[in-house]
Amino acid sequence: MQLVPIGRIESAFKHATGTPVQPSRAPGVPGRVEIFPQYAEGLVDLEGFDRIWLLFWCDRAADPKLTVVPYRTTTSHGLFATRAPARPNPIGLSCVRLVRVRGLILDIEDVDILDGTPLLDIKPYLPQYDNYPVNRCGWVDGLPDVPVVADRRFERQDPT
Amino acid sequence: MQLVPIGRIESAFKHATGTPVQPSRAPGVPGRVEIFPQYAEGLVDLEGFDRIWLLFWCDRAADPKLTVVPYRTTTSHGLFATRAPARPNPIGLSCVRLVRVRGLILDIEDVDILDGTPLLDIKPYLPQYDNYPVNRCGWVDGLPDVPVVADRRFERQDPT
Repeated sequence: MQLVPIGRIESAFKHATGTPVQPSRAPGVPGRVEIFPQYAEGLVDLEGFDRIWLLFWCDRAADPKLTVVPYRTTTSHGLFATRAPARPNPIGLSCVRLVRVRGLILDIEDVDILDGTPLLDIKPYLPQYDNYPVNRCGWVDGLPDVPVVADRRFERQDPT
Repeated sequence: MQLVPIGRIESAFKHATGTPVQPSRAPGVPGRVEIFPQYAEGLVDLEGFDRIWLLFWCDRAADPKLTVVPYRTTTSHGLFATRAPARPNPIGLSCVRLVRVRGLILDIEDVDILDGTPLLDIKPYLPQYDNYPVNRCGWVDGLPDVPVVADRRFERQDPT
């Protein structure tokens, strides 16, 4: 199970601190995806989708922690009940707005991803596959919907 | 970028042929997730979420094809404009119903995943992060919503 980068995500966010925590918290925030040339053929027909899933490798995430205090609360929760990036397989999943396709470059918005992040996959966002009605969202239910951005808690700390 | 399996998905589907192509096309179809013991702590607070994302490794997918004919049509499209599993990084993404958590076992429904598939990650499904209104879904717009299941086209062909 070995991954290959298919491209690279570009954004204004050089560090976790201050980065939006989800695309829905980053309306209009611009970014770009650069696809490596050998994958160009796979982009045909991507134009025309309003939104796309980006799957990416959180290359600056801290080592996995199985219990975390997520950004939106002050209490700890099991990792898999959260979207924190310090995961055994640090695969990020963001549904961004696709503004346009220009050759190997995708202009995107609603970007919550660090600059230079390796891209693993693009999938079209399809409401019939991705929108489900749900009644219960566990510990998240009842949390106040306050503005929040990331801090350093899940960022790999360089030894320097 | 090396992945580790955190568990294993169990279902009635031994081969691609006849397997549902998305959870929304598999209402009530049962399955189980077995989490490996070293990740047990990460499951705390998962109970209570109606749905979860499973990220998994499509271990029986064919080698990547950058142009594919998806199941729902007879015309070819760029891979990244489709959800076909024959991808450079064959990471599957399914939003399944979480029925209950019993220790290391998750009982799930709406399962469109082959039996024995390696599990990479679980993320809670949160409408505020995962449901977006979209107007345009490219080539998918206007397709008839006919029943469809998988066939062998994206399945690795054993040399036997």
